[in-house]
Order: sequence, then structure tokens, then C-alpha cells
Amino acid sequence: MKTRRTPAFAKASAGRQNLIAVALVGALAFTATIARAQDPLPSWNDGPAKQAIVEFVKATTTQGSPQFVPPEERIAAFDQDGTLWVEHPMYTQAMYCLERVPALVKAKPELAKVAPFSTVLELLHGDRAAMEKLHMEDLMKILAATSTGMSVEEFSAEAKKWLGEAKDSRWKKPYTELTYQPMQEVLKYLRANGFKTYIVTGGGQDFVRQFAEKTYGITLEQVVGTMGGTTYGYDKDGKPFLTKEPRLLLNDNNAGKPEGIHLMIGRRPYAAFGNSTGDQQMLEYTKAGDGARLCMLVLHDDATREYAYGPAQGLPDTKVGTFTQALYDEAKKRGWIVISMKDDWKQVFAFEK
Amino acid sequence: MKTRRTPAFAKASAGRQNLIAVALVGALAFTATIARAQDPLPSWNDGPAKQAIVEFVKATTTQGSPQFVPPEERIAAFDQDGTLWVEHPMYTQAMYCLERVPALVKAKPELAKVAPFSTVLELLHGDRAAMEKLHMEDLMKILAATSTGMSVEEFSAEAKKWLGEAKDSRWKKPYTELTYQPMQEVLKYLRANGFKTYIVTGGGQDFVRQFAEKTYGITLEQVVGTMGGTTYGYDKDGKPFLTKEPRLLLNDNNAGKPEGIHLMIGRRPYAAFGNSTGDQQMLEYTKAGDGARLCMLVLHDDATREYAYGPAQGLPDTKVGTFTQALYDEAKKRGWIVISMKDDWKQVFAFEK
Repeated sequence: MKTRRTPAFAKASAGRQNLIAVALVGALAFTATIARAQDPLPSWNDGPAKQAIVEFVKATTTQGSPQFVPPEERIAAFDQDGTLWVEHPMYTQAMYCLERVPALVKAKPELAKVAPFSTVLELLHGDRAAMEKLHMEDLMKILAATSTGMSVEEFSAEAKKWLGEAKDSRWKKPYTELTYQPMQEVLKYLRANGFKTYIVTGGGQDFVRQFAEKTYGITLEQVVGTMGGTTYGYDKDGKPFLTKEPRLLLNDNNAGKPEGIHLMIGRRPYAAFGNSTGDQQMLEYTKAGDGARLCMLVLHDDATREYAYGPAQGLPDTKVGTFTQALYDEAKKRGWIVISMKDDWKQVFAFEK
Repeated sequence: MKTRRTPAFAKASAGRQNLIAVALVGALAFTATIARAQDPLPSWNDGPAKQAIVEFVKATTTQGSPQFVPPEERIAAFDQDGTLWVEHPMYTQAMYCLERVPALVKAKPELAKVAPFSTVLELLHGDRAAMEKLHMEDLMKILAATSTGMSVEEFSAEAKKWLGEAKDSRWKKPYTELTYQPMQEVLKYLRANGFKTYIVTGGGQDFVRQFAEKTYGITLEQVVGTMGGTTYGYDKDGKPFLTKEPRLLLNDNNAGKPEGIHLMIGRRPYAAFGNSTGDQQMLEYTKAGDGARLCMLVLHDDATREYAYGPAQGLPDTKVGTFTQALYDEAKKRGWIVISMKDDWKQVFAFEK
């Protein structure tokens, strides 16, 4: 019995040891998985930017923290162009308006020989890159002609159709795939911690609403943008509808950003993210509140994976809102954190995987 | 053993029967409690109005229902004055502006002899009821003088202070207690079923935001009202702040209500509640959408517990937005449901208990 028992016991014991070893290895692997799963910002390299985000969330959401913020006050504001997705060499909405010109001219043939529509028609069939050089005044005329004078439903259908088909020239992908993976993680991380994430964009509020939900998980009501008026009326069957008007209610850029935030949200944000002079006042306004406030600016310094541009990169200022040297100095002075795309982001786009 | 056993068994049996009886009574009582607890609208009398609300919620929130509405689209819009709280004989916000006049004149003594401020000063110390007869034009002047030209924080502090102290003349209670209990139940019932409840008021957006959260459980971002512009600037220490301006962005009344809804929400509501001609377009716009849409109008026909007024009550139209006979006819034609305060509401105010 003993001879039998001993090997049996030895086997059982060896088996037990194996089981323990397996369990230990499993536990370690499991712990590593948890650690990875627990990193809410896996596309960020370790560094002051990532650290600032994590510390801000900890300070504002830990019960008993002196900087605790009640859930209803947790507002985070994100610029869109250049902060959440690619804005270079041209804003996506500007591209939308330009590419709507042929359809506009088809509907109103008298515009075919009128500038700036005639210029756009030529460039669309020739030197597309030259469209970047169109003046803002011309762009505004084109915007008014292509995005107003129709019902909100017509605008929505046209914009959605274009967004589903159009592709950018460098990556050959829909514009809505050109969002920054690290910023998508920040949006999710903040929402998981009870923050309401708002887009606060100089772009058209109605335009951005066409994709914000699907692209960023941001509901229509949480899109603050440049606002145009609408007019209520009735169709021939007496059915009411709203017509988009060229009447500007609020230019949600620069000082317009805090004004738009007050109008649409009614609260000062605790966190604000931007990338250009157009975001400066939003960051100032955010930082001027009490308690922990997180202000960050994305610096486009990655010519390989995305673009490098703006005076803070030693490059000429080619457009309205860029990261000027003055903005860079202001950021350093006021304790805003500059995100270096090159150094702080492990991965830029989701499709890089 | 048998003799012992039988009584023991009999006792046990009787005990079991008692237990069953107790359990049954308990279950019935429990069921009744559940039934009461499950009635989401206990202050409503049974009738077509209550039934319409319950059926609308069932149709739009039951998975598989042909009229099911995805949670992100569940928007309900509520007028405030006369729909959620008492508006008679004068809007609370008008009372606020009038009672701010003495402080205004103290700060700007030159106004003491200028109409309409001089008139208001006289009436405040004499015939207060005559203030109801002030013209809208005068009220707008007083509104601009008492609610703009200050920072949003100053306005907020002043309005909150007044709301905490002021009492209405009939019930001698703070205005914020004069909300309709049945409508509070509708707000809670809709929210419990995934609806976002918005106030869509002709009143000042910034004014209503001072009490919406505490009074109705409606967060600041979900208050749509008449909107004024603000201007971003800096104080002497360089700290940024927003100044309230007399510049009107949107008059959130009549056609302005659907326009305001598009601006602030970007979606057509599935339910809308009002009480006057100022709400007509909001109800039309709501009803014009596909699927189940609930449109309701509160009729003030209860002179005993609240007030009876408006042409639909056979009484003269004394103010801008009332329940006209034309509105009543429109409601009947379009399938909007008229809530009779007298017949449909078991209880009007929470403090009646």
C-alpha cells in the first residue's frame, strides 16, 4: 500500500505543484492583462502630457479629494479641427463646401461664370492643391451658397452622403477615419469618469453634428460650433420645416468659444483641448475657474506620421488658426500643457495597427 | 401518539393555512403597494390625458414596438411658464426684473425720474397689482437694464438671492415651490424611461438656469430659452469673464421655439408640452415627425386650486401667450391632448399634501 501510495502521493504532489505553477503563471499573465486593460491611454507614451491627464482625472473624481468635482459639473471641451482630427492642408468642412460647388452650379447655372464659384470649378478639375489658397472671404461665400437656403433635413442628407463617399488625398480614407487615436482615448477616459465631452469647434455646428455621434461617441446636443440661424415655415402641404439661413448667430472661434460655451452649456469647463490661436480664449476661460483645470494644446510636430506646421515649428503661418510662437509662450506662462504629437503619441491613427 | 399526532398535525395544518392566509393577505397588500409604487403618475386622475402619457412611453420604449425610439433620440420639451409652474398673474422673471429696479436706481440715480423705471418705483410701493398692466415694451427695457451689463456670475448671484427670498402674493411661498406636481411626475417618469427632458421657454435662458436643476432636476445644458449674447473680456487683473449683453440672439417663443430646439438640441422632440399660443409651433414641429409623438397643452381651468384664464375659458385674453379658442381648435384638429387642470389633476402642488 505504501509503495503504491507514495508514487500516487508523489504524483499528486507533483500535479499540485504543476497546478500551482500553472496558476501562478496564469495569475501573472492575468495581472499583466489587467494592467494593460487598466491603462486608459494605451496610445500615449509615458510623459508629462499623459501624466497630467491621469492626475487631473484622479484629482477631480476621487471622493474626498480637495479638488473633487461633482458629476454634473464635469465638463470637458474639445476643439475639433487639428485637435481631434486632421485639419491640414484644409479643413474638411471647407473641402465639403468646395466639392458641393458642381452640384450648386448645376442647380443654378448662372453661377458657373461668377467668382469664386468659377474659380472653384476650374481648380476642382485641375490644381486641387491651389484651393488651399482661396481667401477666407471666398470660402465664406461658398459656405453660404452650399450650406444654407435648404431645409435642415436636406443639408443633413447631403453632408452625410458626402462624408460616406469622400476620401482625403493622402491616406485615401474617409475623413472620419482621420481622428487621433490618443484623443479618442481621452474622450472615452473622461466619459468613463463621468465627464460630459463637448466638441467646441469653429466649424459649423450643423456640419459637425452629422458625424460626431458615430465618429466620437458625442451626442448632437454636445456639439457647440459656429451657429447659423434657421427660419421656421411650412411646405405646400402645411408641414412645418426649418430652413438654414446665412444669418450668423455666433462665430465659435476665439472669444466666440467661451461665449458659445456659456450659451450652449452654461458652465465653465474643467478641461479644454485645442491646437491653435482660435482656442486660446477657451483655454484662458477654462483655466480661470477654481480648482483643478486641465488645459492642453496639440502641437503638430510630426511630419512623418501626420504634419508639422505653424510658427511654433519654425514654419510659416499659412492659415487662420495655427500654433503661433506667441501661443506657445502663453501656454508655458499659464501652465497649459503642450502635447507633442511626435513624442507623446505612441500611435496617431487607429488604422496604423 | 395518534391523539398527539392528530392535533399536532391539525395545528400544523391550521398553522399552514394561517400562514397561507397571512401570505396571501401579505401578497395582496404587497401587490397593492407595488401597484401604487408602479403608478408613475399618482397626482393624475385616470382619464385620456394620463392614458396618453402612459401609452406614449410604452410605445416608444418597449423593445420590438413598431414605434420604438432609440434612447439617444428620446427628447421631451417642456414650456415653463404656465406648463411647469404658475405664470399668472405675471411671469416670475418679470417680477424679478421689476423688483430689481430699486437696486438699479440706487446704482444709477439718474434713472429715478425716467419712465418706465419711475413708474415701477411708484407701483412697487403702491398698487403692485397694476404692474401686470405694464407694456411688453417697457418690460423689455426693464429686463435689459436689470439683467445685462454685468458678468454672468453677478447675474447668477443676484437671481439666486432673489429666488431664495421672494414669495408670491397668493400662496406666500417661494416661486420655485409653485411647480405643478403632476408635471414633476411626468418629468421624472420620462427620465426614468430614458428621455432627456428639456425646458424650452420664452423666459431668459440664463434666468431659468438659476433654478432648473434644483426645481426640476433639469441640468443647465437642457435649458433652452430666450438667448442674449455675451462678450468675452478681461478684468483689471487680466482674469477673463463674460458680460451679459442686451443683444438678442434668439427669441425662444412661437417660431423661435423650434429654431431654438434645432440650435440647442439638434433633434426633433418626441414629446412636447405647452399651454399657450407661444408653444404652438413647438407642438406642430414635434407632431410633424414620424412615429409616436405626444403633444399636450395645459388648460388653466381651475379657478379654485390655481387660476382660470384665456379665451378657451371664455375669459378675455389679457396677455401675450394664452390658450386662445383658435389654439383649442387647433389642438383638437391635430390630435394634441388638452390637459384640464380641474379634471386631470388630482393634486396641483406638492405642498397641498
